Amino acid sequence: QVIKCKAAIAWEANKPLCIEEVEVAPPKAHEVRIQIIATALCHTEAHILHPKFTEAFFPVILGHEGSGIVESVGPGVTNCKPGDKVIPLYMPQCKKCKFCLSPLTNFCAKLSPSKSPLVQQELMEDKTSRFTCKGKPVYHFMGISTFSQYTVVSDTNLAKIDDDANLERVCLLGCGFSTGYGAAINTAKVTPGSTCAIFGLGGVGLSALIGCKVAGASRIIAVDINSEKFAKAKALGATDCLNPRDLQKPVQEVIIEMTGGGVDFALDCAGGSEAMRAALDCTTVGWGSCTLIGVAIGDKGLTVSPTEILMGRTINGTSFGGYKGRDSIPKLVTDYKNKKFNLDALVTHTLPFDKINEAFDLMHQGK
Amino acid sequence: QVIKCKAAIAWEANKPLCIEEVEVAPPKAHEVRIQIIATALCHTEAHILHPKFTEAFFPVILGHEGSGIVESVGPGVTNCKPGDKVIPLYMPQCKKCKFCLSPLTNFCAKLSPSKSPLVQQELMEDKTSRFTCKGKPVYHFMGISTFSQYTVVSDTNLAKIDDDANLERVCLLGCGFSTGYGAAINTAKVTPGSTCAIFGLGGVGLSALIGCKVAGASRIIAVDINSEKFAKAKALGATDCLNPRDLQKPVQEVIIEMTGGGVDFALDCAGGSEAMRAALDCTTVGWGSCTLIGVAIGDKGLTVSPTEILMGRTINGTSFGGYKGRDSIPKLVTDYKNKKFNLDALVTHTLPFDKINEAFDLMHQGK
Repeated sequence: QVIKCKAAIAWEANKPLCIEEVEVAPPKAHEVRIQIIATALCHTEAHILHPKFTEAFFPVILGHEGSGIVESVGPGVTNCKPGDKVIPLYMPQCKKCKFCLSPLTNFCAKLSPSKSPLVQQELMEDKTSRFTCKGKPVYHFMGISTFSQYTVVSDTNLAKIDDDANLERVCLLGCGFSTGYGAAINTAKVTPGSTCAIFGLGGVGLSALIGCKVAGASRIIAVDINSEKFAKAKALGATDCLNPRDLQKPVQEVIIEMTGGGVDFALDCAGGSEAMRAALDCTTVGWGSCTLIGVAIGDKGLTVSPTEILMGRTINGTSFGGYKGRDSIPKLVTDYKNKKFNLDALVTHTLPFDKINEAFDLMHQGK
Repeated sequence: QVIKCKAAIAWEANKPLCIEEVEVAPPKAHEVRIQIIATALCHTEAHILHPKFTEAFFPVILGHEGSGIVESVGPGVTNCKPGDKVIPLYMPQCKKCKFCLSPLTNFCAKLSPSKSPLVQQELMEDKTSRFTCKGKPVYHFMGISTFSQYTVVSDTNLAKIDDDANLERVCLLGCGFSTGYGAAINTAKVTPGSTCAIFGLGGVGLSALIGCKVAGASRIIAVDINSEKFAKAKALGATDCLNPRDLQKPVQEVIIEMTGGGVDFALDCAGGSEAMRAALDCTTVGWGSCTLIGVAIGDKGLTVSPTEILMGRTINGTSFGGYKGRDSIPKLVTDYKNKKFNLDALVTHTLPFDKINEAFDLMHQGK
């Protein structure tokens, strides 16, 4: 049966979202309809709405980081049942393709490698949408569209989690936390006693900081152009905080001096040429690892001289922290329950759904 | 006692070398004087002579890939004695610094990380030269200056090898072979059954090819703009050879089609923006590894979009194949003796010392 509910619709670029009544069709074969309980915001949504991002589809229901409860399942679904708590996954895990069968990656062949994940899974596998509004079909976003009270996802795009999970916290595992934490743990593979630098202290950067701390880094240098982020960074384990705008010379030079030659691991959670350049520059010769996590729209990229790489540096990167979502997110939920890490610091504001545009404003203000 | 002998001197940029009589002073403390028996040429020498390479020192005795016999040792030298066969090492291994003590790198703190290795070790540790010609001091090159019948090196800059080593072959372990072979084995860490692409089939590229083959790669795609290199590449184990100039579309697209999505490992032994770009592009999403080995003078570098890295690709690089020379080169000599690999294919021409300018001509012609 069709469910009528509220959703935040992006009708076009560069406009606020509109809370509208939408119709959510029942799940077809291998699909699951989920009642969304909590969702978070990410700059990814802002990218889609940015006028420079020309590949976006409209109208669309955004949102790719949330948690919910299974409302109903279509034929053939075996990995969850109505009432189960779940986290929708924008990175599918089909468990059949060569990528899913390899331990080396969380990429899945359900995605095309030649397009950004942001502009894929805009329809269900049968090439239709489950959303309509005012009689018109509305696009899905990254396969999960969490800015709706109900959504429909493929059964490859959800992780069933513990029944006692706190959905208002673990919704962060749907993107931001896992992306940053996994970047440190899985991609950079931060080692005990190492020195790290983190560029950008938003949700992903703070999560990367938590990851460095859990991995046993002994020195964590946190960098942001907004010094208001530093108190929280220090509370989470940063040993030093640097604001490039307060420094007399480039932040990478300061870090190289502070560390006697550069850090073992740099993680760029800011995006943008300048931050990526600083992140690569501040790594030590010999074994310095620069992990790219952030993406800035319309950016020039990072221009690398082979000489700096030949000195033993590595550049790597990660989406969703390298986690195969169906396998790993339930374990992260358990880790959270067992207090391996705390998510409270990552929650700055909790707003009712119809104030979603105020949430975007807070995000753009860096709050 | 001073030895008078012949050496090829580069008096200035962009000019042929001159065979001159030089005086080679005796080794001071922790130095070794070596009779050079064989030396090879490398584009590195051509870089130094290139008018665009403005950091070079003149006059200088070039050469950084050779083999020889210890003639005499200064006070305090314990790792070799007169009569020992040795390979001079342009990458020192002091065995004391934090880099030498780490298994992660072959960098040594005797080098400055902020300058190219090409413009370091131009003098001995006491800041003087052991070479004079026509009454003037002559600079060393990369600490070893193999374009001389006799040279003086620091005892951190040589590997003592087996007495029965064939010096005319193992001289290649002083740079080209070790750089390419080690890039595949130590840096890319090519895995059995994998698919590889190698860009540039000079000595380093062919050595990388040998490394991929020894590592068990099942498909090796060899790329060069000179199709005359392909017969040798095939003999060494290349399964496919591509000349970008003969293709209707970019070589990376052809490789992606041939391999159903890209290679596991790409090794750029050509240098230059175009080859680096093709090497990165032709790696698979998920786990593609792009190893940079080549350097082109005055090149624009490789501009990377974070998105292509976030899809699971890694860029790494290596100098001297990641080998700690004093520890590893003697083992490679033994591996060669045990026929783990063959060096004959890498030797195209053998010339007497005073025909060194003809050797440069052959190198520039790609022969």
